[in-house]
Amino acid sequence: MKSPAIILIRPQIGENIGAAARVMLNFGMRDLRIVAPRDGWPNEKALDMAVGAAGLVEKAKIYNSLEDAVSDIRFLLAATARKRDMEKPVISSKQAGFLLREKLFKCGIIFGPERTGLSNDDMIMADNIVTIPVNVNYTSMNLAQSIAILCYEWFSCDASATKTKKEKPAPKKDMSALFKHLEQELDKSAFFRVPEKRRKTWENIRTTFQRTNMTAQEVRTLRGVIRSLTQKKSVK
Amino acid sequence: MKSPAIILIRPQIGENIGAAARVMLNFGMRDLRIVAPRDGWPNEKALDMAVGAAGLVEKAKIYNSLEDAVSDIRFLLAATARKRDMEKPVISSKQAGFLLREKLFKCGIIFGPERTGLSNDDMIMADNIVTIPVNVNYTSMNLAQSIAILCYEWFSCDASATKTKKEKPAPKKDMSALFKHLEQELDKSAFFRVPEKRRKTWENIRTTFQRTNMTAQEVRTLRGVIRSLTQKKSVK
Repeated sequence: MKSPAIILIRPQIGENIGAAARVMLNFGMRDLRIVAPRDGWPNEKALDMAVGAAGLVEKAKIYNSLEDAVSDIRFLLAATARKRDMEKPVISSKQAGFLLREKLFKCGIIFGPERTGLSNDDMIMADNIVTIPVNVNYTSMNLAQSIAILCYEWFSCDASATKTKKEKPAPKKDMSALFKHLEQELDKSAFFRVPEKRRKTWENIRTTFQRTNMTAQEVRTLRGVIRSLTQKKSVK
Repeated sequence: MKSPAIILIRPQIGENIGAAARVMLNFGMRDLRIVAPRDGWPNEKALDMAVGAAGLVEKAKIYNSLEDAVSDIRFLLAATARKRDMEKPVISSKQAGFLLREKLFKCGIIFGPERTGLSNDDMIMADNIVTIPVNVNYTSMNLAQSIAILCYEWFSCDASATKTKKEKPAPKKDMSALFKHLEQELDKSAFFRVPEKRRKTWENIRTTFQRTNMTAQEVRTLRGVIRSLTQKKSVK
């Protein structure tokens, strides 16, 4: 059982990064990844706040883009409190603990910036949305506290890993390449006719593909399909 | 179902008090009590850190002694990571969620100062010890994070309150009065002969009584017994 990666996207407050590292280590997690931290890197406040987990902060991997940060991840959760109009399955923190425990491949959870949370662009990459049940009258949770709850659920969950022979889902880098490929071809073919609708349309398409939970082989096949379709067109 | 009181004993860092208030409100808890905060009261850092839960910090009740802080509480948990030599039942955070949910009377959880955690003197008052399962290699949790986990377990637990007609346990103020009464009488009777052993002996006695989970009526009866025994002696 691999411990999931905790991926902080554009975190704003160094103390929260440190507090996240500390609670990750409390619950046996060590894979901290950070995309574009607001105050640069390294961050003294993160190190101070981490106390005994400062080593985890020092070893955090820093990325410029979410795409790079999740390239090796095969099952990705997006932590958010807000309801979204995105067609993704929403699971509870308790369910997330079980799901992450039973996977035999690399998983991760993304968390958005303190002020705004995850953007739709961030969430599109994820397989599921995970929501912590909270008081409807005060849903605004501190970033490190949300991380604490999800790490705790993963650690304290007693699901025994189900050793199935099922195919692994494709790593996210394959999905990214697939989407880039498809988008280029859609652009070439002038698919997006109304610029104002482009964003939403493309989001919907990606969401649909994401839900299929494709294996690496299926991604290769699909890219072959796209190549084939587009070559045929250029031959005409 | 009443929400349990969160009782911070000699907390040292204002930010932790504020973070505790915020996560309490996230999980629908409003009864914050503080015993002898190190930096006095009110505390600006606590208010800042609480964000939308600043009202909860403003309404926090401040006490000079733990005894006063828990006087109305009938079931008290002591949150600690360290193993103790005290003969008290130890339950997990998950069990605590269920237990607190099923009680129909006022409950509370005490948390010790950041640096040292709860003292034995603090813990003696509690009915059970609650421990959050953590990585044995790094057990030192941030105070507000421990509070987050226990509030979360209480809030997300789906135990339906068992509406039994069982007698309520006595409020802690009755237990305090009983122990004071008993201690005075033991002193008068020169019970504690070896001063170095006094502390541990008295601790053991209290622990034994604590485990009986007496009702208010039983406490009254027992105090009658003590009075009776001691009056008899003075008449001789």
